[in-house]
Amino acid sequence: MELRIDRQALVPVVQQIVDALTGWLHHSEVQPGTRLPSVRQIARTNLLSQSSVVEACERLVAQGVLASRQGAGFLVAAPVPVVHGQREGPWFEGAEEHQRGRQGELRLGHGGLPESWRETDDLSYAIRQVSRTDMAGLFNYSTPLGLPALRQQIVKRLKPLDIDVEECRILTTAGASQGLDLIVRTLFKPGDCVVVESPGYSLLFELLRLHGVSMLEVPRTPRGPDVEVLETLLLKCRPRAIFINSFYHNPTGSSLAPVVAQRILQLAKSHGVLVIENDVYADLHSGPGTRLAALDDDVIYVGSYSKTLSSSLRVGFVVAGAEVISRLAQVKMISSMGASRFCESVLACLLASGAYRKLVQRQRQRLNTDREAALQVLEDAEWEVFGKPSGGLFIWARSQMSDYAQVRTQAQRFGVRLSSATAFSPTGEPSDWQRINVAYACDPRARAFFQATALDRPQAF
Amino acid sequence: MELRIDRQALVPVVQQIVDALTGWLHHSEVQPGTRLPSVRQIARTNLLSQSSVVEACERLVAQGVLASRQGAGFLVAAPVPVVHGQREGPWFEGAEEHQRGRQGELRLGHGGLPESWRETDDLSYAIRQVSRTDMAGLFNYSTPLGLPALRQQIVKRLKPLDIDVEECRILTTAGASQGLDLIVRTLFKPGDCVVVESPGYSLLFELLRLHGVSMLEVPRTPRGPDVEVLETLLLKCRPRAIFINSFYHNPTGSSLAPVVAQRILQLAKSHGVLVIENDVYADLHSGPGTRLAALDDDVIYVGSYSKTLSSSLRVGFVVAGAEVISRLAQVKMISSMGASRFCESVLACLLASGAYRKLVQRQRQRLNTDREAALQVLEDAEWEVFGKPSGGLFIWARSQMSDYAQVRTQAQRFGVRLSSATAFSPTGEPSDWQRINVAYACDPRARAFFQATALDRPQAF
Repeated sequence: MELRIDRQALVPVVQQIVDALTGWLHHSEVQPGTRLPSVRQIARTNLLSQSSVVEACERLVAQGVLASRQGAGFLVAAPVPVVHGQREGPWFEGAEEHQRGRQGELRLGHGGLPESWRETDDLSYAIRQVSRTDMAGLFNYSTPLGLPALRQQIVKRLKPLDIDVEECRILTTAGASQGLDLIVRTLFKPGDCVVVESPGYSLLFELLRLHGVSMLEVPRTPRGPDVEVLETLLLKCRPRAIFINSFYHNPTGSSLAPVVAQRILQLAKSHGVLVIENDVYADLHSGPGTRLAALDDDVIYVGSYSKTLSSSLRVGFVVAGAEVISRLAQVKMISSMGASRFCESVLACLLASGAYRKLVQRQRQRLNTDREAALQVLEDAEWEVFGKPSGGLFIWARSQMSDYAQVRTQAQRFGVRLSSATAFSPTGEPSDWQRINVAYACDPRARAFFQATALDRPQAF
Repeated sequence: MELRIDRQALVPVVQQIVDALTGWLHHSEVQPGTRLPSVRQIARTNLLSQSSVVEACERLVAQGVLASRQGAGFLVAAPVPVVHGQREGPWFEGAEEHQRGRQGELRLGHGGLPESWRETDDLSYAIRQVSRTDMAGLFNYSTPLGLPALRQQIVKRLKPLDIDVEECRILTTAGASQGLDLIVRTLFKPGDCVVVESPGYSLLFELLRLHGVSMLEVPRTPRGPDVEVLETLLLKCRPRAIFINSFYHNPTGSSLAPVVAQRILQLAKSHGVLVIENDVYADLHSGPGTRLAALDDDVIYVGSYSKTLSSSLRVGFVVAGAEVISRLAQVKMISSMGASRFCESVLACLLASGAYRKLVQRQRQRLNTDREAALQVLEDAEWEVFGKPSGGLFIWARSQMSDYAQVRTQAQRFGVRLSSATAFSPTGEPSDWQRINVAYACDPRARAFFQATALDRPQAF
């Protein structure tokens, strides 16, 4: 098996091997159960280290593409065993966040900030500081609700959003993901039914499926969920909860209008329905804006530092009433013995020093510039834009080309990787709308792609 | 409300407030719903900072002792809402690991190494190293199976235990707790039935209860679970799995005899039952010893670095067949987007440099000395010892005093806090056996306590 590996490329060799193996599997149409050549053989043929080949194969095992059997090396996997209640198909979209694009590809629909935007100095300084001074932070479990110093900082951060809480209503979590997981596993049971926005956050859909919770779709409008549809769903289907991504919504970039927020809460109250507000993009926003949790104490609010500071530290949080927090804390402790106290200390240090505030200020400025430029590029290419996001990472847009396959072809031609066509739908419905990450949209490859998808202007009448 | 706070004590002020409030609640027999004096008032009366009082109250909220209501401050809680399938009662024993003893108390039954044993230099150095050199580690999500460099090191570490695995069969987790949680939530469903050892690991019992999985008890003998009882249970009740803590078992300190290990695997095979081996104390052991996972590839093996290096980093791992690993990885990603890549890098660095190997060598030597001394103290006090542990943290023993309340009274008298009488039983059955942490057993307070519980020797015949 000969793999094309470019040692000069910026893409790590392991990723190149993953891509090359995937390509080989596609093109040669091998049957499940087929044994791959031995690791030693692949390594020797392609002048690679065996450990790189093993690492690449493992990633494909994690993706369900390969299987490994002791003594037999790697085999082409049978379709991945389906976890209870989970959609079949490839590794979920959320996992793509972990993977680099193929060689030289531009990840136009990527869910986070580009690596080049990340700033090391402050974070690295805080880490060294904590490692030198906080002995307990190096060794001990954190407290059940999370490090008090961190929760104090979170209280302060929530004040300008008009979310006025005491520390005891805040629970730190390993990213927003653990927050959502704790909420779903503690407050719902299999067979329960909840409302989710469509399009919406793919990992939430996977999580609900994992727990056997069924989903009702409410269409997302540029001002928030469609409240008329919501009302009908509440009347007809009696769901237990509504999940809403209030600000700079993933994937549409839209934000909740105050009047919509009010209406949602009215409806939720009168139908006795729980509201869960996902606000992980909050720090990409400054200035006025309505949060559901600011209007109603019963709203469960989920925040994160993964989008701005670091996805590696795994720190997020949940705000809820004391009884809910107590139940979530109990499940958090039983299932993970809490978050990393060291990571919590590092974050608390950055929040207290003001370094974090300045970091997100810089990110916002840069995103604002890029968003303006991106919207212009899209206008020039005559793409249809969903609302006109005032901030955040995403624009939701589609080409007016009638043949969607052609859009994908153009993307490939210019080395642009589009977001998954099905990931943002709770039911996996394909869509021709694209999540566009504004930080990538002005790359020359993206510009060339957008230009190529512009409708041909009439040459002459 | 006047609280007795000793500013010279080693116990942190917040913990003193927690203790004093708990004492006040017990002694004044206040009713649920009673409002506490305001934080400001408590702080002023006792010359404390308001933030210390708030922190203390929050800890009591997390323990379900207080509740907090916006606008109304802190109230005495109604009994904690019971999570589905969960035993009623106080905050589970595992959470005690988080809490310091009362003022000056010696935690004789503590589950970990004393803080004074923890060594900062190597860990702190590795943290600084990673923060300077590993840019991706600072910012990015880890890979689904966990950092390849760490898994490579885990492979090496497992070799001397005769567990010969490829990296693709290892999944890193946020401590052994997340490992067990992933196993339980992915492989079992509510209503399933499993075998657990009694006495055994309290957090596992809580976890199984949380998931609605019912437990059958197999008595732990000094050589492992009682295989005759196990056989009867397998025949009669058809459980789906057996959980076994093979080495330096918590709480008895006993280890699996090779012949018992063989028999367990025979029984498991013939009844088609899954074996889950918890070996979180593995690194406190060197020399020969049989692991179930070394004898059978189908055993799911759980390891951790929390007991030796740091509970703060939250790094553990699971070894299993490729199909199981793929399923666990999927649930891990959906529920937490993986472990902290930074923490994984730090651990990989310590393992690769050999610093970790030397650390656990020192810990073993120190534990060996302390264990010998502790066994002697227990012999002098004529305590009954369960087996005679050859290593690890724990001795399981009981006084021969017939009145168990008297043992507790003596412990209090000498400022010794004993382990919970009910936590190690799957059904919460009280026991007069004590988990004794050898690192604490030679403290003068412990010695005085043991002496006081010695049966009076006959004075004259």
